[in-house]
Amino acid sequence: MNDQTLDPAIHIRQLGTRARTAARALMAASTDTKNLALREAAKALREGTRAIVEANAADVASVEGLKPASFIDRLLLDEARVEAMATALEEIAELPDPVGRVLATFERPNGLTIERVAVPIGVIGMIYESRPNVGADASALCLKSGNAVILRGGSESRYSTREIVACMRTGLKEAGLPEDAVQTVQTTSRDAVAALLKADEYIDLVIPRGGRGLVELVRDQASVPTLLHLDGNCHAYVHASADIAKAIEVIRNAKLRRLGVCGALESLVVDRAIAPDFVPALAEAIAADCELRGDAEACALDVRLVPASEADWETEYLEAILSVKLVEGIDQAIDWVETHGSHHTETILAEDAEAARRFMTAVDSAIVMHNASTQFADGGEFGMGAEIGIATGKMHARGPVGLEQLCSFKYLVHGSGQTRP
Amino acid sequence: MNDQTLDPAIHIRQLGTRARTAARALMAASTDTKNLALREAAKALREGTRAIVEANAADVASVEGLKPASFIDRLLLDEARVEAMATALEEIAELPDPVGRVLATFERPNGLTIERVAVPIGVIGMIYESRPNVGADASALCLKSGNAVILRGGSESRYSTREIVACMRTGLKEAGLPEDAVQTVQTTSRDAVAALLKADEYIDLVIPRGGRGLVELVRDQASVPTLLHLDGNCHAYVHASADIAKAIEVIRNAKLRRLGVCGALESLVVDRAIAPDFVPALAEAIAADCELRGDAEACALDVRLVPASEADWETEYLEAILSVKLVEGIDQAIDWVETHGSHHTETILAEDAEAARRFMTAVDSAIVMHNASTQFADGGEFGMGAEIGIATGKMHARGPVGLEQLCSFKYLVHGSGQTRP
Repeated sequence: MNDQTLDPAIHIRQLGTRARTAARALMAASTDTKNLALREAAKALREGTRAIVEANAADVASVEGLKPASFIDRLLLDEARVEAMATALEEIAELPDPVGRVLATFERPNGLTIERVAVPIGVIGMIYESRPNVGADASALCLKSGNAVILRGGSESRYSTREIVACMRTGLKEAGLPEDAVQTVQTTSRDAVAALLKADEYIDLVIPRGGRGLVELVRDQASVPTLLHLDGNCHAYVHASADIAKAIEVIRNAKLRRLGVCGALESLVVDRAIAPDFVPALAEAIAADCELRGDAEACALDVRLVPASEADWETEYLEAILSVKLVEGIDQAIDWVETHGSHHTETILAEDAEAARRFMTAVDSAIVMHNASTQFADGGEFGMGAEIGIATGKMHARGPVGLEQLCSFKYLVHGSGQTRP
Repeated sequence: MNDQTLDPAIHIRQLGTRARTAARALMAASTDTKNLALREAAKALREGTRAIVEANAADVASVEGLKPASFIDRLLLDEARVEAMATALEEIAELPDPVGRVLATFERPNGLTIERVAVPIGVIGMIYESRPNVGADASALCLKSGNAVILRGGSESRYSTREIVACMRTGLKEAGLPEDAVQTVQTTSRDAVAALLKADEYIDLVIPRGGRGLVELVRDQASVPTLLHLDGNCHAYVHASADIAKAIEVIRNAKLRRLGVCGALESLVVDRAIAPDFVPALAEAIAADCELRGDAEACALDVRLVPASEADWETEYLEAILSVKLVEGIDQAIDWVETHGSHHTETILAEDAEAARRFMTAVDSAIVMHNASTQFADGGEFGMGAEIGIATGKMHARGPVGLEQLCSFKYLVHGSGQTRP
């Protein structure tokens, strides 16, 4: 797991070559075979619980006292968390196979029938930090969608990852699939990450999952395609027509249900027309649980608000803090969101359907909601099953990345000897 | 068009800022308005024919004697070619608007209705070489799909491009759309290309269209997402069950209809079971028009074949040359294509439907055909209308890139006050 004697470029080439071979086998694997591998991997995880928890204890021991409690919590695996990993694999086995779906069919006047059919992407590189369960989840989603995966977890989770990956490979072997469909980078050298990000020949896609530093490093260094998950500075706009009680319930949920998720609400934009009624009601309802940072106008409406600084408008807090900005009408609201938002998830709270339509059309975010909590920004809540992340870019996948988004497609052209004039 | 006093980074930032503003207006533009802009641009091209042809003569004069005839031909614009550009714009106006299509709808048990809706990508950077008509075609496809475009044509076509872009902007102005929806990089400095490729904040996608050197430069340097068009080393596999006469007609068309297109056939893989009959028949039919380079076994079957070298198996000739390799059965054929092909377009010639199914499933190319000419690898032939290129990557778009592929999507979530448990 941390062999510093490996030459990073040669190591990545070896991993890549083996992954390519495995990917070809996986591309042709039946749904039943892939599901069997997932169920056998779940079984191996359960049977390996003690070994996984022990390995994890060694990981935790190596960073104890060096990292904050929240970091340790993300790293920690106990029996319940191992069981949750196993259950997640079984749930992925239950999901429909995304490969082979016919996405479109064109019948051409010359008699050609052309089908666009979903196929695996090929080899996916997954770079992640701290949470070792990502190794199991990501491997399972890749396996189900017919992709080989090369995992590069954080050095802090190296022992846990080794045990988890062994279970995934046991599942593959039991199902008669190549174990190299799930591999890990065997060195924590940063050069290995650099080599991975340039390995166009072997890797079709890299997905980073971690903090902003990691994601920006991947964005800036990768020549292979990427699916990036950047900030979620999510906005709610309280329109003049909003039902105040309903709006406050949605905002409370969007902000406070869970603070650390990317769909958590961070910024509130309130129409001046409703602000004198709304802001005090909001403060009354949530100021005890959540710091409200307002612009001067908002602060003038209720003493429980504290002044916001310019930086607040751009900040993804992931804490019990909410910024409050007053605007004059829907156009200003849209401008504000487009200028200060991160194009992740926004919601409009309004009883006026035309205002909602206008906001949803004009705001260029992955997810735009009407009268719903931004915490619904989640593949499971969309009915897509498990997700590998939420993509904030606009190419290939935008929003939740589930099994369908882990597929590419190809065209099948059925002819009877046609030639082109 | 070539102001070397511009600071490239500042210039790209200015272009990007203006493009972002224009893109917001374009995102909201109606189909009728976009079509009016296209028709007015076509009119401006026709009215500007003389100015365009004169500007083009200056471009041609600047490279005459320095570049091969084929280069000059690509660069050249005469009245007929200007008319063809105008007609192409009118044809794009006739195509369906790709924006606003509802791609999927999910009704959730909690009452949320979630729609996946096609939206423009935003700002597209288009880097191209020599053919000045690409500036008109690409602008028109971007406009129709609601995207702003920043063009960076070759320095050899600078005067032609200036005139063409002026016509596109006239069309936008006449339709009441922002002229900055079509802009050009005003310097031929290479630093401007470098800045464009790193301008994540302003540019959502870069599409290079040109030789391998340009495409690889974009792949290696870009931090913005890209759609790349690399080699088309297209294969035909002549299966044991092939109808020899039909196969030869398809191969003749695939190889010789047009030599310089990316869907032209370059490599032939022939099953040993049919080779003794097939290879002499092929040589009889096309050796007079096309050099056949075979492996030792193929050459032994007909004196009209010449020996191939190792490099031949990987070469996209774009000339009247075809390589011929003998294999033992379909699995070897698939292995050969996967190892030596470029994953662009392949075809199997077979009367055995099961063999065709197997080849089409196992070969991981953008387009896999059965009993059809590889020259059908074209957006128009697929019924997609005009295309901006053929993507050889697997993310977002694969194969022909038309209006639908120039769109992203977003999720619209319609609620009535739902909160997440």
